[in-house]
Amino acid sequence: MPREITGFSNPLVKRVKALRDKKARRAEGLFLAEGLRILTEALDAGQVPEMLWFAPGSAGHPLVERLVAATEAAGGEVLVTGVDILSKLSGKTNPGVVLGVYAERWTPLDALDRSAADIWIVAERLRDPGNLGTILRTGDAVGAGGLILIDECTDPFSVEAVRASMGALFTQRVAKAEWPDFLAWLRSGPGQLVGTSLNTETDYQTPRYEAPTFLLIGNESQGLPETYEAECDLLVKMPMRGKADSLNAAMACAVMAYEVLNQRRRR
Amino acid sequence: MPREITGFSNPLVKRVKALRDKKARRAEGLFLAEGLRILTEALDAGQVPEMLWFAPGSAGHPLVERLVAATEAAGGEVLVTGVDILSKLSGKTNPGVVLGVYAERWTPLDALDRSAADIWIVAERLRDPGNLGTILRTGDAVGAGGLILIDECTDPFSVEAVRASMGALFTQRVAKAEWPDFLAWLRSGPGQLVGTSLNTETDYQTPRYEAPTFLLIGNESQGLPETYEAECDLLVKMPMRGKADSLNAAMACAVMAYEVLNQRRRR
Repeated sequence: MPREITGFSNPLVKRVKALRDKKARRAEGLFLAEGLRILTEALDAGQVPEMLWFAPGSAGHPLVERLVAATEAAGGEVLVTGVDILSKLSGKTNPGVVLGVYAERWTPLDALDRSAADIWIVAERLRDPGNLGTILRTGDAVGAGGLILIDECTDPFSVEAVRASMGALFTQRVAKAEWPDFLAWLRSGPGQLVGTSLNTETDYQTPRYEAPTFLLIGNESQGLPETYEAECDLLVKMPMRGKADSLNAAMACAVMAYEVLNQRRRR
Repeated sequence: MPREITGFSNPLVKRVKALRDKKARRAEGLFLAEGLRILTEALDAGQVPEMLWFAPGSAGHPLVERLVAATEAAGGEVLVTGVDILSKLSGKTNPGVVLGVYAERWTPLDALDRSAADIWIVAERLRDPGNLGTILRTGDAVGAGGLILIDECTDPFSVEAVRASMGALFTQRVAKAEWPDFLAWLRSGPGQLVGTSLNTETDYQTPRYEAPTFLLIGNESQGLPETYEAECDLLVKMPMRGKADSLNAAMACAVMAYEVLNQRRRR
């Protein structure tokens, strides 16, 4: 049976709202996701919230009912509350009709099965949560195995990244590693490391990419460090016809990832 | 000679800060851009600010000096002020070292020279300023002629859109139109209208696109209305291997635009 929460001062409201901050997420190992579409994507990917919040007005909606049933069956807690409290929890004036609290799922590097997918995305010092979420979404679209975050990246479990991922956070594996550890792991098995860079004349459509392809995307404003580029098996660049000299990092990732996917489709 | 502005209550501070709001932008025909990189891109594209603000600490920087000289030569106003006021103007804790106030530049549809470029981007009811800015940046990268905004879109001159465009707002022409007016203009000359859609079996790599190609990108959550799809010369879809069922609108635009560019490169 759903429990009703009516007071803003309820400790659970405070605890869940605190998950908008990274420190609280790390301490609790929990994060927030909101909106019927994203929570349904999560459920379809086998992820059930530890806590499900919804407004009384959306009771009876078949997708909400499905989420409630799944949460209860898994031993999670279901809470009914007003739109005002949902709004406080999500930080949005118009909150989604549902809000879920999920366990953070980092996959250890050693637990990634590189043979499970032809494409893996590796992002280095990514700063923007919107870019991170969008890259996860691209990864989902091209059937990537997951996203490996190198060095200090923006948090994939932040409200902004989860929102931008449109549910792909739940379908993609997410790992993190310092560069030397990633490199050691990468070189312990098959895998072609491909960096996008302005420091090459190789057009991105020239090479024939080998599976599994690890696409390395650099920091939004600085690109990849030279020492990282030196470790790549291939550096490639996309044609730029314009006056500005770079593509957005998430765009570059999408264009590269589709090139790799298109090559596989043609074989 | 730069004028010094020291007080938060200076009417000019209030007037410029107000440009963060759409209503003030429309009333004044002015908008804000900040950061040395973006203002330098603008200058390289021939756009000089009506007003240039910078902090005393950045006087002497060659790029700042170049902006100052260009602004003064064009009869614009140059203002020196503290980082605290720059921060207030830009709404960021760490403002750029320069901030420019520019005249809005809408290009009337009839003034677009469609033969000037092989690719044009058309976006319909785009909601997210980050997506709009990113699409402008993609347009710049592929050498598009410009961006045509259909029906009610987010404002391309908002601080967020300008920031996300990384200067491409100054290199790309921007037009807006209601759908029937756009269609009448489009059909008055050559041009292939290509919509991305889930309602087709045509893979986006199958057709040979004809120049000028008008890429039509739909609203982020709803895609294109059926009646708009019906007017397209071609509907195409990108392969989706994942569990979530769509690409971000700006991603789809980048992948499509690079496909069109790649086809041209091969001819």
